[in-house]
Amino acid sequence: MEKIGKAAARVFDKIGYLQANVNDVADAVRMSKGGIYHYFTSKEEILYFVLDRYMDRVLDNLETSLRALPPEASKLEFIIQRHIRLYAGHKEESKTLLHDYNCLSKKYRQKIAEKERRYLDLVVEALSEYLGENKRVKAEEIKALAFLLFGMCNWCYQWYDPKGAIDSDTLSRIIWTVLDSGISTYPFGGMA
Amino acid sequence: MEKIGKAAARVFDKIGYLQANVNDVADAVRMSKGGIYHYFTSKEEILYFVLDRYMDRVLDNLETSLRALPPEASKLEFIIQRHIRLYAGHKEESKTLLHDYNCLSKKYRQKIAEKERRYLDLVVEALSEYLGENKRVKAEEIKALAFLLFGMCNWCYQWYDPKGAIDSDTLSRIIWTVLDSGISTYPFGGMA
Repeated sequence: MEKIGKAAARVFDKIGYLQANVNDVADAVRMSKGGIYHYFTSKEEILYFVLDRYMDRVLDNLETSLRALPPEASKLEFIIQRHIRLYAGHKEESKTLLHDYNCLSKKYRQKIAEKERRYLDLVVEALSEYLGENKRVKAEEIKALAFLLFGMCNWCYQWYDPKGAIDSDTLSRIIWTVLDSGISTYPFGGMA
Repeated sequence: MEKIGKAAARVFDKIGYLQANVNDVADAVRMSKGGIYHYFTSKEEILYFVLDRYMDRVLDNLETSLRALPPEASKLEFIIQRHIRLYAGHKEESKTLLHDYNCLSKKYRQKIAEKERRYLDLVVEALSEYLGENKRVKAEEIKALAFLLFGMCNWCYQWYDPKGAIDSDTLSRIIWTVLDSGISTYPFGGMA
């Protein structure tokens, strides 16, 4: 199933989930169509498997790792580095999540959305901790900042080549420094 | 054509470009299918019209406006505010650009990409000016920062509701302040 999922992510990323069919996936993984149907009942099930597995990687051990960080380490920096490394290592899955999530039927979408929400919660928690409780930043602003961070990280799929001039840990450091300096003066003199 | 384009953007955003057909667009604009074909020869032509018009709005007078700004004004702040306002006012077109650009055939994609490149160039120019020439920031880093900014702005389509708790000018100010404080210490002690 892992092998089929990996090949399917490549196919979906290359020709698009809606245009792809199970034959394309079978060809990519050098199996018969029947062989694929031994593991999955439909193209949608393959898509769900790919996205669910990717979200499992995103969440895998994250909470435990964050709790185990030494007090001087930044949780946000850790999350950013992990996120960009994961993207660099699983570009096709990540792009499939961004492009084809909407192709899932509702019951599958809900399951993926639940895992995405758990990730968002962890980022919001790390941001709240960073900003400190005394600053009285509104919950919706912290959420907005979390989404700005997701924006910087996820937009990578539009431009970033991990094999190009900027390696993934350098990119993480740039994002972390922009965020760190960027929100250090939050809430920006009572803007909101 | 403007009316058809507006309705088409709504349809594409709602049910997806690939699933939508010209009948759906005709229904949304209360015209006959024949009426649509009077203006457009195919569904793809409608999509191209929508995206091309949106990029025209993005670029409309931008260079002239930037040149006309008083010296104390920030070009980057101006670009961010304009970008978020445009998104808030043309959510469906903006989302269609992000979701369905890949559905265009090569010749149309190239024309849109050319306009996107012009926009990127203006942002890179504003960033270079902001960072100052003396800091010897590499071209690829400035480009990366431009894409981080695009990420913060464009990711909005995933979460931001201009009618919600944060109005569009407040969001622009948050993004601008994060960027402004975020890159003020660039290049971060010789990281790259």
